[in-house]
Amino acid sequence: MGIRIYGFWRSIASFRVRVALRLKGLPFEEIPVDILSGEQFRPEYAAVSAERVVPTFVHDGHTIFQSLAIIEYLETLQSEPRLIPQDAKERAYAKSLALVTVADAHPLVTPRVRNHLAATFGADAHAIEDWGRHWTTEGLATYERLLAQRPAAPFALGPEPGLADICIAGQVVTAQYVKLELRDFPAVARLAEHCFRLPAFASSHPFEQPGYKAAKAAH
Amino acid sequence: MGIRIYGFWRSIASFRVRVALRLKGLPFEEIPVDILSGEQFRPEYAAVSAERVVPTFVHDGHTIFQSLAIIEYLETLQSEPRLIPQDAKERAYAKSLALVTVADAHPLVTPRVRNHLAATFGADAHAIEDWGRHWTTEGLATYERLLAQRPAAPFALGPEPGLADICIAGQVVTAQYVKLELRDFPAVARLAEHCFRLPAFASSHPFEQPGYKAAKAAH
Repeated sequence: MGIRIYGFWRSIASFRVRVALRLKGLPFEEIPVDILSGEQFRPEYAAVSAERVVPTFVHDGHTIFQSLAIIEYLETLQSEPRLIPQDAKERAYAKSLALVTVADAHPLVTPRVRNHLAATFGADAHAIEDWGRHWTTEGLATYERLLAQRPAAPFALGPEPGLADICIAGQVVTAQYVKLELRDFPAVARLAEHCFRLPAFASSHPFEQPGYKAAKAAH
Repeated sequence: MGIRIYGFWRSIASFRVRVALRLKGLPFEEIPVDILSGEQFRPEYAAVSAERVVPTFVHDGHTIFQSLAIIEYLETLQSEPRLIPQDAKERAYAKSLALVTVADAHPLVTPRVRNHLAATFGADAHAIEDWGRHWTTEGLATYERLLAQRPAAPFALGPEPGLADICIAGQVVTAQYVKLELRDFPAVARLAEHCFRLPAFASSHPFEQPGYKAAKAAH
C-alpha cells in the first residue's frame, strides 16, 4: 500500500513532510485534516494520531507522527537523495538547524497557541499577529546569525537541499503568514529563494494546496 | 579536551543532555548560564551559541546546540549504552515520543515565553502559572494516551532507558515546576518513577544542581 499523509494545507509541519517526500520522489496521498476547525479532535482521527496533530504518516500499516521523525524514517525507506548527512558532525548541524524552528520558533505560532491566547488573555487578531511576528522574527534572526557563521552554498549544508533547508523554508512560509518582510534576513531570503525554485518545494507550499484554494474560493 | 556543557539548572533541555551523558558514563563539566537573568544574551555567550539558548555542547573544538541534536551526536561519540534504537521503526517511535515535549509541549513554557506573556498581555504570576499548567497537562495527556497504546516495559521502548524516557522525565520535571499532580497520568508517573530510581536521572534533576541549591540558599 502507498504512503498516506494526514495533513493540512496550512500546517508547516505538513509542508516539511511534503517537501521531503517529493525530494525523494516518493508518491503519496494527502488526506486533509482541518486543524483550524478542530477536525484533529474527532474520535476517528484520534485513532490515527494519539497526539491529535498533523502530519501523521501511514505506510504499510505503520504510523509515525512528528515531522522530524517522519523525515528521518523516509531516509530508511529510500536513502537517495539523502536529506540528512551521514557524517555525525554534519548531521548534528542539520538537526540543530531543523530544531531552531521545530523546537523553538514554530511551536509558538500554531493554531492551538493562537486560540489559547485569545481564550486566556482575550488577545484579538491584531495582538495574535504581533505575537506571531515576534516569535517568527526570533527564528529568522537566529537563522540569519547561523548563516552568517557558515554561509549557505547555496543550501545550508552545501550544494544539495536537505532537512535543514526544508525547515528554514517552512520558517519563511510562517513569515509570509504573519506578513513579515525578509529585508533584515538576506541570507535566509536567499536560501529560501533557492529552495522555492525547486518543484519539490514550490509544489508543497501551503498556497499551492487544494485546501488553500478551496478556502480562498469560499471567501 | 573533555566535554563541556553550557547549561542551566532549571533548563529542561540541559537536564536531557545531562542524563544522556551520565547514562553513557561520559564525564563532563557544566558551565552555568543563568537564562533567568538573561546571561544567554551576553556577547561572550553569543559567541558560543548563535541561538542564545542552553544547552550548548562543546567537545574537541566542536560546538552543537539543541538537546536532541546533542544526544544523537553522543550516540556516535560512544555507542553504548544505546539511547536511540537502530531499527528504523523503533527509532521513529523514540523520536516521536521525544518530540511531543521537545517540539510541542515544552517550548511553550520556557522563560522567554513567560516573559513575553507578561510584557505583552500583562500576565501576572498566576496567569503565567496557569498557562504553564495548561500546556504541561497537554503534553502529559498525550504521553498518557501513547503509553496506553504501547505500555512502557518499564521504559518507553523496553527494558532499558533511552531518549524517549529522558524526554518524558523532563516533561515530568516541568510538571513539578508548575505544581501539577500526576494523578491523572499514572502510566507517565510510573515511567518517571523508574527513571528517577537511576542515578543518571536522579543526579541530573534540576533540584540536584548546584545552581538550584545556591538560588534556594539566597532566598
